[in-house]
Amino acid sequence: MSIKLGKNTYGKNSVNLSKIIRHPDYHEFRQISVNVVLEGDFETAHTIGDNSKILPTDTQKNTVYALAKEHFVSSIEAFGLYLANYFISNNPPISQARIEIAEHSWQRMRFNGTEHPHAYCSGGAEKHTATIIQNEKGIEVTSGINDLLILKTTDSGFENYIKDNFTTLKETSDRIFATQCEVSWTYNSSNVLFTELFNGIRTTLLQTFADHHSLSVQHTLFAMGEAVLTKFAAVNEISLKMPNKHHILFNLEQFGMDNKNDIFIATDEPYGYITGTIVRE
Amino acid sequence: MSIKLGKNTYGKNSVNLSKIIRHPDYHEFRQISVNVVLEGDFETAHTIGDNSKILPTDTQKNTVYALAKEHFVSSIEAFGLYLANYFISNNPPISQARIEIAEHSWQRMRFNGTEHPHAYCSGGAEKHTATIIQNEKGIEVTSGINDLLILKTTDSGFENYIKDNFTTLKETSDRIFATQCEVSWTYNSSNVLFTELFNGIRTTLLQTFADHHSLSVQHTLFAMGEAVLTKFAAVNEISLKMPNKHHILFNLEQFGMDNKNDIFIATDEPYGYITGTIVRE
Amino acid sequence: MSIKLGKNTYGKNSVNLSKIIRHPDYHEFRQISVNVVLEGDFETAHTIGDNSKILPTDTQKNTVYALAKEHFVSSIEAFGLYLANYFISNNPPISQARIEIAEHSWQRMRFNGTEHPHAYCSGGAEKHTATIIQNEKGIEVTSGINDLLILKTTDSGFENYIKDNFTTLKETSDRIFATQCEVSWTYNSSNVLFTELFNGIRTTLLQTFADHHSLSVQHTLFAMGEAVLTKFAAVNEISLKMPNKHHILFNLEQFGMDNKNDIFIATDEPYGYITGTIVRE
Amino acid sequence: MSIKLGKNTYGKNSVNLSKIIRHPDYHEFRQISVNVVLEGDFETAHTIGDNSKILPTDTQKNTVYALAKEHFVSSIEAFGLYLANYFISNNPPISQARIEIAEHSWQRMRFNGTEHPHAYCSGGAEKHTATIIQNEKGIEVTSGINDLLILKTTDSGFENYIKDNFTTLKETSDRIFATQCEVSWTYNSSNVLFTELFNGIRTTLLQTFADHHSLSVQHTLFAMGEAVLTKFAAVNEISLKMPNKHHILFNLEQFGMDNKNDIFIATDEPYGYITGTIVRE
Repeated sequence: MSIKLGKNTYGKNSVNLSKIIRHPDYHEFRQISVNVVLEGDFETAHTIGDNSKILPTDTQKNTVYALAKEHFVSSIEAFGLYLANYFISNNPPISQARIEIAEHSWQRMRFNGTEHPHAYCSGGAEKHTATIIQNEKGIEVTSGINDLLILKTTDSGFENYIKDNFTTLKETSDRIFATQCEVSWTYNSSNVLFTELFNGIRTTLLQTFADHHSLSVQHTLFAMGEAVLTKFAAVNEISLKMPNKHHILFNLEQFGMDNKNDIFIATDEPYGYITGTIVRE
Repeated sequence: MSIKLGKNTYGKNSVNLSKIIRHPDYHEFRQISVNVVLEGDFETAHTIGDNSKILPTDTQKNTVYALAKEHFVSSIEAFGLYLANYFISNNPPISQARIEIAEHSWQRMRFNGTEHPHAYCSGGAEKHTATIIQNEKGIEVTSGINDLLILKTTDSGFENYIKDNFTTLKETSDRIFATQCEVSWTYNSSNVLFTELFNGIRTTLLQTFADHHSLSVQHTLFAMGEAVLTKFAAVNEISLKMPNKHHILFNLEQFGMDNKNDIFIATDEPYGYITGTIVRE
Repeated sequence: MSIKLGKNTYGKNSVNLSKIIRHPDYHEFRQISVNVVLEGDFETAHTIGDNSKILPTDTQKNTVYALAKEHFVSSIEAFGLYLANYFISNNPPISQARIEIAEHSWQRMRFNGTEHPHAYCSGGAEKHTATIIQNEKGIEVTSGINDLLILKTTDSGFENYIKDNFTTLKETSDRIFATQCEVSWTYNSSNVLFTELFNGIRTTLLQTFADHHSLSVQHTLFAMGEAVLTKFAAVNEISLKMPNKHHILFNLEQFGMDNKNDIFIATDEPYGYITGTIVRE
Repeated sequence: MSIKLGKNTYGKNSVNLSKIIRHPDYHEFRQISVNVVLEGDFETAHTIGDNSKILPTDTQKNTVYALAKEHFVSSIEAFGLYLANYFISNNPPISQARIEIAEHSWQRMRFNGTEHPHAYCSGGAEKHTATIIQNEKGIEVTSGINDLLILKTTDSGFENYIKDNFTTLKETSDRIFATQCEVSWTYNSSNVLFTELFNGIRTTLLQTFADHHSLSVQHTLFAMGEAVLTKFAAVNEISLKMPNKHHILFNLEQFGMDNKNDIFIATDEPYGYITGTIVRE
């Protein structure tokens, strides 16, 4: 029984790039982090140290900066598509290029109702993400949102679950539901209106979360995914990861006080972690 | 020459508390992290393990949760003042109570121009901070902002500095200026309109940053502090810490391309770090 | 075309547990973090909010603490096997239990050549990991190491790679090779000597890294995996993830000085990222 | 009442530098992070954007790398002394230079009792620190340890403290005592044997922690400081910061089980935080 190389990848992670796009009346500031992940005919690099088919990760990095000049002009999806195709087209040993881009959120400062032409505030930790995979089977575009930190103070409960010897959780019909969501969805084409779709899907996710009468995290997760698939025909499937950012009722009764669902301990660990993919049949 | 205890403190850090304040037409969600830092007559605890004057940090934590029920109803400054006074008044060995509160930013979701009654999005990493120090000399209130991540794409330069044998930086009259600011200011009274002042000071800081013709980080730091002192008589002095979040021009010339100040490498380390306090004379 | 639930999981993450095992002459201190990840018949929880088949993640957490009392007495693999089987056996809706455990490293303090009976120093960020998956197909045990931060100052080069228009990297036959390795391997049985094998495999990985004449990260990654498979028949396959912690030569020549491969800039981002699985054929 | 500049500093933080020192039979690998913090006559930089007295932080960074070539050859204290003096001596506007260095811990790999000549494992998060302050009053050298993560499983209790209405903590004569210590001490001279002293002081701190019959964190903190001052005449004073890394007894009684002080919940927040300086009188 011999030993051999199985699945392998290499690339450059966290290529942090910012760009100013100068419009007539304002500066558009964009900040992204790019990962390049390549697969291909790299077996001899592993087995005998033959680098003749290896495009150095340093060169990959340079390529991202250089191509951003002309080709990062609209959505991160469009830039990712260009990058993936560039790596595949220019390097025969590469059979698959995977480009992952996360875009930081920056918002123009607003004073007296007017946006400043070149001053920005951070839009928070939330990031718009895109993953482009190009190989001989074709091109797949996945978009998403990372670190979408959302919360509702009511219209969320958790009851009628299994009880056993180790159960101590009390049932509740009214709890805080908070999560730092990671969402991603695949499109059925690489030629859609990425920015418009992203904005529409984000709003649909938020509105469903806000308005859903939640009986569990699972229940709301499914509703959010279903709403997106129902409304956006261009979306094939959607995956949500929802860590439960627990806000636990503080026991005020032990001090002779009443906790009318108002004082909570916010905890980070341990945390419930719910994931699900919603698909079309 | 004998050995003895010098300055010492103890307390509970990161008491993470959230509260729902139920208004007739919406839920106000607040999330804070509280540090309690006590000084006093604690020498024998150190020298002979006598805990008779020690209020356990666990009890401090319980106190924060319990008092939040009735007394965390408006600003974090007001809650901090109540807490500091409570610890001092109820524990004779304590000579100074320092309460540090950082409030997370949450924003009500907005759909079609209307705020949702109970669904929230994170307002980002930026935090409103307050530090209350109460001792026999009186009470000092410091408010501030942490993790204020701001950026301008132009109207910032850095020229005419010292050159020596180790200089490689090129002068520029047009660069990106980005910083993750930490600001704090002291009030001349513990009886001011904390929330209104905070909002006014924050806007003044942002607007000064946005509109300043910056010749250096120092230059803008001073202008921001000066603007606050000029406009807000209730502020005694203001301190700013401004790490320079460098965006370095990527060298496209090496590829025969032109970098018209548009493609940058965003770096985290090393970073310039500028601090200054602006005072009244 | 209807919409339905695809793959989904839920569970509790980061159940942080510590245990003292009291031996006649010393205290053994263990600290672990446990994730429970369950799959099964949970469709109605998603679609209609029916929680009747849901074992709350809070109960999962309690179960981990309670079962640790009697059953966390030797390796994390053995404890994981017990937990996975417990969840499957006691909850019919669960079709798969995945238990992930990471063990923190603690080392007994040593004074004058003698280990202290109950005082410990941290063993660093490196963690021993184990993942147990139990379902109707059987049981799979994966062990591994996270955050294995290793470095060699020489016997590593990178030459003869592809050059193109965006190449700026210089070839070198002598560079620093540093990586924060994540390694995992599967056993061909759930009844092996986990602790002895772990220690042997860890040593083999380190020794191969140390002694390998490295022509690239890929080259050494493969050698490390191959050495483990060659030496340990109980291992089916092994995967390594090797981020390149770059130490880049500082340009001293610009100051008229010579950099004889001795002064480096240590950077975190961007970083090369090499992954590979080595298998038996 | 006019507005003016108060205390201000600027400099470069996180200058991450690694160095190989080649000995006849092995390679010594050193990795440090350097902060340069300057004070001086910088008022016009703030008030009118006059940079003529400003040594750019980029040049400070270059200086650190360049001077490391000849002058980072032994302790970080010695290198810090050289750097502080260099900045002061070569730049008249600078009235004070503060150099902060943290050294990462790397340990040579050891196989069959022999140290490998050029392969290293991380020594963990613990860092040796040094701060040098040079100004017209002279030179002050502070050394220390950051992230010293230590723990004892017994010989620690906490009893006889204040009880009030908010007390829920139970007294215990036997608990886990864990802390991620930050220690720093000042020397009475800048001409001592830094490395030997550091090693001796570190051992004294560990041994005192291990052997102390602890009645509180304060009690052990003082004992550790006192032991160092007693044993090392070169040390003027010592400060310790001891966050309490709580390991809380899990309530097994609720499941009809017994917790004989063996199963604990490890928590990060909230945490007790004890600080103290021990001085000579």
